[in-house]
Amino acid sequence: MKITRSDLDKMPSRYRAGLMNTLSGYKPANLIGSFSESGVTNLAIFNSLIHMGSQPPLLGLLFRPLTVRRDTYANIKANGYFTVNAVSLSIYKEAHHTAAKFEEEESEFEKTGLTASYIGNFPAPFVEESPIKIGCSYQSEYPIKENGTILMLGAIEIVEINDSLLRTDGSLALDKEQVIATVGLDGYALPEIMDRLEYAQPGHKPNSMNHGTQKK
Amino acid sequence: MKITRSDLDKMPSRYRAGLMNTLSGYKPANLIGSFSESGVTNLAIFNSLIHMGSQPPLLGLLFRPLTVRRDTYANIKANGYFTVNAVSLSIYKEAHHTAAKFEEEESEFEKTGLTASYIGNFPAPFVEESPIKIGCSYQSEYPIKENGTILMLGAIEIVEINDSLLRTDGSLALDKEQVIATVGLDGYALPEIMDRLEYAQPGHKPNSMNHGTQKK
Repeated sequence: MKITRSDLDKMPSRYRAGLMNTLSGYKPANLIGSFSESGVTNLAIFNSLIHMGSQPPLLGLLFRPLTVRRDTYANIKANGYFTVNAVSLSIYKEAHHTAAKFEEEESEFEKTGLTASYIGNFPAPFVEESPIKIGCSYQSEYPIKENGTILMLGAIEIVEINDSLLRTDGSLALDKEQVIATVGLDGYALPEIMDRLEYAQPGHKPNSMNHGTQKK
Repeated sequence: MKITRSDLDKMPSRYRAGLMNTLSGYKPANLIGSFSESGVTNLAIFNSLIHMGSQPPLLGLLFRPLTVRRDTYANIKANGYFTVNAVSLSIYKEAHHTAAKFEEEESEFEKTGLTASYIGNFPAPFVEESPIKIGCSYQSEYPIKENGTILMLGAIEIVEINDSLLRTDGSLALDKEQVIATVGLDGYALPEIMDRLEYAQPGHKPNSMNHGTQKK
């Protein structure tokens, strides 16, 4: 099936959004925790977290245009800190529920049944149930002129991970804690890490890593 | 296990890269096709494709700093067009192989065994074996001052998808064609779409969509 730009422009907006949101592939699923100016905990699911770089350790979050109230954005701008919490199989329905239009003074933690937790005196709430908790400080933002979205950058200040995830080379075996991926606006997928491939070299098709702990 | 920013800064760079590249979750896997100025087809795997917005239909690609030769970046800047091709299970080793340091005048299509194909007269090569083929035109770029990476935006001009993927609401059932996700720099995961949840509302935990074709 072939779809031109002109076909896309003529599609009903929900149909186009359905297509566009799945076209680029699987996305990560993360809960962003923050405090409102009046101290209410806030939690929101995002599928637009981007690994921006390792040194300095930077994450990016793409926000939709500020045409309606965006609590997470406002909170981060006001307080300068936020948390990123991986969504695992056991909490994906609660995670999805955070997308509902709760009132500004309502906490998505209370409303969805997830538990706010804290690491040291880091000034934003983490999700107790999440196997990967990341505390970030606001760094900067890049307004995207083409459509009004905003790419916000955060620097990683603190990380807490379930020990079962950590491999000997520093990478995380996400499937050990059933971390999920999202598909479009409503789909949830459980990936299984089926292979790890050796560093690619010109001369031959890459082989699977085949030594014990590195395999998966 | 707790890791502070100071722990991160002290880690050996490969260990830190292993951690940082898996910390944000699963990423999409796409092959970017382009033409060099001298007409050689180029193909490179990227896990940094971002859905930037649906109207206008925009995708983003995060490029690492231009401290070494980056053929894909140079080609797109020179020619203005590129293709995005989903990686499915049957081609993930060939896709990974495109990351090898081939010479500028060598085509990754020829070297990895993937097949270049064309849609109408769109001026960049697609991957015949891919179930989702997207043709994009260069729009703009945002240099990220914190680390020298570059966010490049492309507008979708043409899409060709295998019919089996399309659901009645416009979204794509990526698992019907075994589209894969990546984990870090070397991991490949096969996700199964296990659920779709209804639009989130404040009053109750979201239910699964339960009517036929919408389910998955």
